[in-house]
Amino acid sequence: MSKEVRVGLIGYRFMGRAHANAYRQVNAFFDPPLRPRLKLVCGRNETAVREFASRFGWEEQTTNWKEVISRPDIDLVDISASNDVHAEIAIEAAKTGKAIFCEKPLARDLKEALTMFRVVQEAEVTHMVCFNYRFFPAIRLAKRLIKEGAIGRIRQFRAIYLQDWLVDPTFPLHWRMRREKAGSGALGDTAVHIVDLARFLVGEIAEVTGLLETFIKERPLPDRPGLANVTVDDAATFLVRFAGGAIGVFETTRVAPGRRNFMHLEVNGEKGTLYWNAEAMNTLWCYTEEGPPHCQGFRRI
Amino acid sequence: MSKEVRVGLIGYRFMGRAHANAYRQVNAFFDPPLRPRLKLVCGRNETAVREFASRFGWEEQTTNWKEVISRPDIDLVDISASNDVHAEIAIEAAKTGKAIFCEKPLARDLKEALTMFRVVQEAEVTHMVCFNYRFFPAIRLAKRLIKEGAIGRIRQFRAIYLQDWLVDPTFPLHWRMRREKAGSGALGDTAVHIVDLARFLVGEIAEVTGLLETFIKERPLPDRPGLANVTVDDAATFLVRFAGGAIGVFETTRVAPGRRNFMHLEVNGEKGTLYWNAEAMNTLWCYTEEGPPHCQGFRRI
Amino acid sequence: MSKEVRVGLIGYRFMGRAHANAYRQVNAFFDPPLRPRLKLVCGRNETAVREFASRFGWEEQTTNWKEVISRPDIDLVDISASNDVHAEIAIEAAKTGKAIFCEKPLARDLKEALTMFRVVQEAEVTHMVCFNYRFFPAIRLAKRLIKEGAIGRIRQFRAIYLQDWLVDPTFPLHWRMRREKAGSGALGDTAVHIVDLARFLVGEIAEVTGLLETFIKERPLPDRPGLANVTVDDAATFLVRFAGGAIGVFETTRVAPGRRNFMHLEVNGEKGTLYWNAEAMNTLWCYTEEGPPHCQGFRRI
Amino acid sequence: MSKEVRVGLIGYRFMGRAHANAYRQVNAFFDPPLRPRLKLVCGRNETAVREFASRFGWEEQTTNWKEVISRPDIDLVDISASNDVHAEIAIEAAKTGKAIFCEKPLARDLKEALTMFRVVQEAEVTHMVCFNYRFFPAIRLAKRLIKEGAIGRIRQFRAIYLQDWLVDPTFPLHWRMRREKAGSGALGDTAVHIVDLARFLVGEIAEVTGLLETFIKERPLPDRPGLANVTVDDAATFLVRFAGGAIGVFETTRVAPGRRNFMHLEVNGEKGTLYWNAEAMNTLWCYTEEGPPHCQGFRRI
Repeated sequence: MSKEVRVGLIGYRFMGRAHANAYRQVNAFFDPPLRPRLKLVCGRNETAVREFASRFGWEEQTTNWKEVISRPDIDLVDISASNDVHAEIAIEAAKTGKAIFCEKPLARDLKEALTMFRVVQEAEVTHMVCFNYRFFPAIRLAKRLIKEGAIGRIRQFRAIYLQDWLVDPTFPLHWRMRREKAGSGALGDTAVHIVDLARFLVGEIAEVTGLLETFIKERPLPDRPGLANVTVDDAATFLVRFAGGAIGVFETTRVAPGRRNFMHLEVNGEKGTLYWNAEAMNTLWCYTEEGPPHCQGFRRI
Repeated sequence: MSKEVRVGLIGYRFMGRAHANAYRQVNAFFDPPLRPRLKLVCGRNETAVREFASRFGWEEQTTNWKEVISRPDIDLVDISASNDVHAEIAIEAAKTGKAIFCEKPLARDLKEALTMFRVVQEAEVTHMVCFNYRFFPAIRLAKRLIKEGAIGRIRQFRAIYLQDWLVDPTFPLHWRMRREKAGSGALGDTAVHIVDLARFLVGEIAEVTGLLETFIKERPLPDRPGLANVTVDDAATFLVRFAGGAIGVFETTRVAPGRRNFMHLEVNGEKGTLYWNAEAMNTLWCYTEEGPPHCQGFRRI
Repeated sequence: MSKEVRVGLIGYRFMGRAHANAYRQVNAFFDPPLRPRLKLVCGRNETAVREFASRFGWEEQTTNWKEVISRPDIDLVDISASNDVHAEIAIEAAKTGKAIFCEKPLARDLKEALTMFRVVQEAEVTHMVCFNYRFFPAIRLAKRLIKEGAIGRIRQFRAIYLQDWLVDPTFPLHWRMRREKAGSGALGDTAVHIVDLARFLVGEIAEVTGLLETFIKERPLPDRPGLANVTVDDAATFLVRFAGGAIGVFETTRVAPGRRNFMHLEVNGEKGTLYWNAEAMNTLWCYTEEGPPHCQGFRRI
Repeated sequence: MSKEVRVGLIGYRFMGRAHANAYRQVNAFFDPPLRPRLKLVCGRNETAVREFASRFGWEEQTTNWKEVISRPDIDLVDISASNDVHAEIAIEAAKTGKAIFCEKPLARDLKEALTMFRVVQEAEVTHMVCFNYRFFPAIRLAKRLIKEGAIGRIRQFRAIYLQDWLVDPTFPLHWRMRREKAGSGALGDTAVHIVDLARFLVGEIAEVTGLLETFIKERPLPDRPGLANVTVDDAATFLVRFAGGAIGVFETTRVAPGRRNFMHLEVNGEKGTLYWNAEAMNTLWCYTEEGPPHCQGFRRI
């Protein structure tokens, strides 16, 4: 018998909408052991949140996130609001014993993240950061093949995640370009995904050296004339050594013209290679040494 | 009227054979201003070098490289021998006023390379390191488009060069795996190509941080039982800042299973992106902002 | 103000489920001028149809399709049942004045289809066959570019649609492999999509010559021991002349190993080429003669 | 010990040059059992043929093809001249006992081809039509895999060969566009290659139905003002049944914008699929049913 989980969603923009859709669709197409119930959604604009609730079938809406935390009929708090409020909401929610599902990046900096982690551990609540790529079928297959030993011990990992939505210098200053709101730029927004996948597929990172760069240092203000400083990175690159002995290369940027949302991963092991590209997200490429030499090659699964 | 250049080739294995073929074919298909004449080829094994000379149409052969240097009827000395003799031959050749065409890597280390450079400069002879990728039509087109301003000022560069010929741990210890002969491993053998292309397309490198790794630390001796240490790198990764302000990521390895000879380059500018993959070596991909939004996309040239 | 359309869905398997999902999602993500209301769903198995109704949010369910036709509170009848009942249901529905949305293939043969067409025309009801590919963004973009004259007058069209779900000869005899139920095999199931796209992009077909083939002539019965004849085609190929002067080549099969659902379209005009492959369904490739010669190439939009 | 074959080459333009290069290179890189000797080359323009002979190392040249036939020191006559003289030269050469190597298309029509075939058979000379694609490594591998039974009995074959060199309507009337010289258009020029590959990989063709089309019916004269009729096809499409039971689809054209030289082949068997695209001419794609279901996919060899 599946168990109902009463969801309180905070934030209904891009990711909030994606989460709402997922909660609804999972019940239509699958029989999950934990069945989400679209109980309460929270946003600052009352009209907009009411319309959102009606479209996706939320039972209630509110403009006060503290209500989500305090309501006894909410089991899970979904934090899809901007990065600067993740910590406050998560800490409050943990104290009232709610399960916590927080959008990435978890926090604006390491200190904030560690505080959040300590609080949820002390509160002994279920908690999770939303890293969606782990759940892609091709990534799960990669994980399975690695576990089965198909490519042997891992030696090298490379991951590239390129976007171009900030390449236009007249694109106005958004909260994602201000350190006090976003914490970081491409590092927290896109690099987190490839770091998460590296941890999922290869293991923990032991050493790192890297480089951040901001190419467009000033942008127009969104609401009045004038320019203001961009206080986060446009691009981040880093080299790592994993605890297990592998080495890795990571690169992300938000200013690569024409690269709408390009992500490429490759894992080289002693005996084989796996690679995956998000533009063909259901395809995993696999090379192993099996078979006669005249038939060897990458397999598109 | 084209001028004849009398070539003395030292080394007739993999690269020597490629050079011999090129000297011969350029005269059949093109009308170069400098027309190579296959005058003298040098190798240590007399029978083999004689057979090689006959196949490719060399006029004479020798087993003594000093003969190549000292002969007055040789204009150009082509150094296609192993890395450890590049410096000695080049320095001697420069002293006799020959033009010098040296295979990459130029030398085993920076000191050796700088000495060579100083000598050829003092001797005022024509000199060049063989970087073949610069001459690929797609790379020349990339250079042309960058010069024409098609992608604007360059911001980011990434280059990956993966091979797998050393992935088998039973592959015996070759001179390319010994520091005293080769100088370095993947760094000097394959990374040099992408560094050269970066310098060709983007410009000089100002700062670098990197990481070398040797995964297979011992290999069988080629000529008797037993193992010996591999004293060069299997893989090299590095991050750079170019003098012009761009940043770059480089990676090369000789142990990526299934990657026979995979090279990928990408250049992101303010206004566009170019990328190229050696597996489709005559194809250059280009994105620029031109045209109406519903028609934008990468163009495969 | 959007108008509500009360839907009665007949059939809830593969396509019925897809339609139900679409009716529900269109209201969540868009503001369509006609807003579907999930009123009544019909299926033969009462338990299954009840469960389906609950999952997707249908207000009522029934096991009698005549109820769907006769109910005054149904505006649109969606026929997602097997091919052999399309005609009967559509004709009855037209007589009661319902709008009709019928899955492809419309009918089992030309005579049946023409009868259906005559009846709905006489009844003056809104009617449509479900050809989903027309609505793919890349196909709509192709249509737009053709209309804008980007490739000039069309000369050639080619379409390939390959599947492999029937390649296993032990796959049992399904209603889709019996002429009296399905009408035809690959011709009606998959070729219809590419014929529809040809009509959408190029125009009406004037002449045709073709070839049908059944490679696996007998298959196991699904419900008892023994084999029975396959009475429809496994593969269909045909050449056409369009009314507008272009020529075309079509091929479809259900027995191409490894080709899960491979569809490729290409249109050659006087001045350019468009092609599209369903494996990268949001990518349209476009070649036109614009630009300087050294920049010409296919553009991936 | 390899045997020398003294070659007499008639025609030194596009294909003659390719043959001359091949004769020369095969001796440099391989040890063929029959070693070509570049004895005599024939062309109508004395200056041009002399320059050609000197570039590629032919011993002698002539402007009279009858000399090539009559010389006792010629073993092989290579017919790389225009289509309208293939028959006359081949028949004469056969009568003097020369081995014959004739460019495709063999003849302008079936009657001419059958006459040639009868004469060389009666003369009992070695003879061959130049179909180069059979010798591509990927095609030879496909042949080998088919022979080894990797994909089972063949059911379907498809081949597309697209070019665009005639898409410009101002491109002048060339001998290849006149029936009396060329025999046919795309049919004899490009379709012959895919028909040859079909015979090589699948077997003999038993039945055929097809369609020829000429889109650009008039073209400028090359040497004086005015237009003249194009008397050959721009495009050819045909459906076949092979003697072994497989079916096939063929298409070729010379007016597909942007398709410089696009050739795609696919063979579907009972147990697997092979496909190949000339744009990546050293890559063969192979799907077979081997391996666990979660690893199945096309393999890029």
